[in-house]
Amino acid sequence: MTDKSNIGKRRAAAIEKNSTGYNARRQEIINAAAQVFKVRGYRGTKLADIAKVLGVDRVSLYYYISSKDEVFEEVVTGVVIANTDRIIEIRDSSIPVREKLRETIEHVMNAYAENYPFLYVYLQENLSHVAASRVEWATKMREVNRRYTQALVDIIQQGYDSGEFRQVAPADVVANGVLGMVSWTNRWFDPNRSQVSAEVIGKGYADIIIDGLCTK
Amino acid sequence: MTDKSNIGKRRAAAIEKNSTGYNARRQEIINAAAQVFKVRGYRGTKLADIAKVLGVDRVSLYYYISSKDEVFEEVVTGVVIANTDRIIEIRDSSIPVREKLRETIEHVMNAYAENYPFLYVYLQENLSHVAASRVEWATKMREVNRRYTQALVDIIQQGYDSGEFRQVAPADVVANGVLGMVSWTNRWFDPNRSQVSAEVIGKGYADIIIDGLCTK
Repeated sequence: MTDKSNIGKRRAAAIEKNSTGYNARRQEIINAAAQVFKVRGYRGTKLADIAKVLGVDRVSLYYYISSKDEVFEEVVTGVVIANTDRIIEIRDSSIPVREKLRETIEHVMNAYAENYPFLYVYLQENLSHVAASRVEWATKMREVNRRYTQALVDIIQQGYDSGEFRQVAPADVVANGVLGMVSWTNRWFDPNRSQVSAEVIGKGYADIIIDGLCTK
Repeated sequence: MTDKSNIGKRRAAAIEKNSTGYNARRQEIINAAAQVFKVRGYRGTKLADIAKVLGVDRVSLYYYISSKDEVFEEVVTGVVIANTDRIIEIRDSSIPVREKLRETIEHVMNAYAENYPFLYVYLQENLSHVAASRVEWATKMREVNRRYTQALVDIIQQGYDSGEFRQVAPADVVANGVLGMVSWTNRWFDPNRSQVSAEVIGKGYADIIIDGLCTK
């Protein structure tokens, strides 16, 4: 316990110091961990497994990361932010609005599969009910979620404003419906086992949503 | 503890005996509990609150129910089965397939609001990760879920077979997309606080899905 608490202080100091070498090694560990999580799943992964693929002792990892949860959170955060940035980029691009919606739906479905299982584990988590130690992280992620949802609401609203989409319901209801369609795949779609690909699902959903929204 | 275990045996015997009077009183308690859950939420409800609205002592409830969890489970089970039966009825009816799909989507959204928060709490639960004491219940509910999803897959397939729906993706992918759209409302829709009603959401989603699927 004294040892662990001591390494905790050294880790905190190293993160604070923010040296290039330390950060690079920490990122290397996070990337290796991501691969282990992909193969073994979240529950099936132990810190020792991550140490093993890196060819180091488990104890030496503690200088860089405190727990399996922390490293998982780091992976998820990176993926969710990259995903959000992409949707915002699509929203702000100058392609036709129906193409924006198609790009978004197909991108999200592909991101789920490419980053499996990170985004699905994240979706399964209720950010309102995280442990006290993770409140700061949850607050940050709720803000990312808000930006993500808003970008999609904006795309729907652009279609309403231009008259390309018929206004079947308020823009946020439609945006949440689209998010629901793709996000719910966390309950039934496993890209490693499914006979149908993320591309087929994304394209099918985009076809339905876009033809359903476009004025005839 | 001896008392509690003794009442447990008496309850088990009474349930086993299946008398009309006992069953009616137990159902009365479950119905009262449903109202308390609606007002106070699952977390905010104590067995004592349920006893209070019934004007009885908390201890006397133990002859009918073992815990808050059990009574909540009873409420959820009834609602989920009723919902599933309705979708099966719609599937087997002779109305046009696009009307079947509209009825289903609108029915499910309305059922979420009318039975708030039961179906949402249920949707938030991962049936693969329930406690050992609830495995039997989870197994039963997985079977109900399977029938529910299958009924919707069948409706989509009917539309494919008749040529009324264009085949944008396998029927189960589309059915899960529809379920996702409506089920995801558990994350953002609270019928008691929302400015938009379940009717508006259901109608909007039905419009999108049906026009998105119907051949032009």
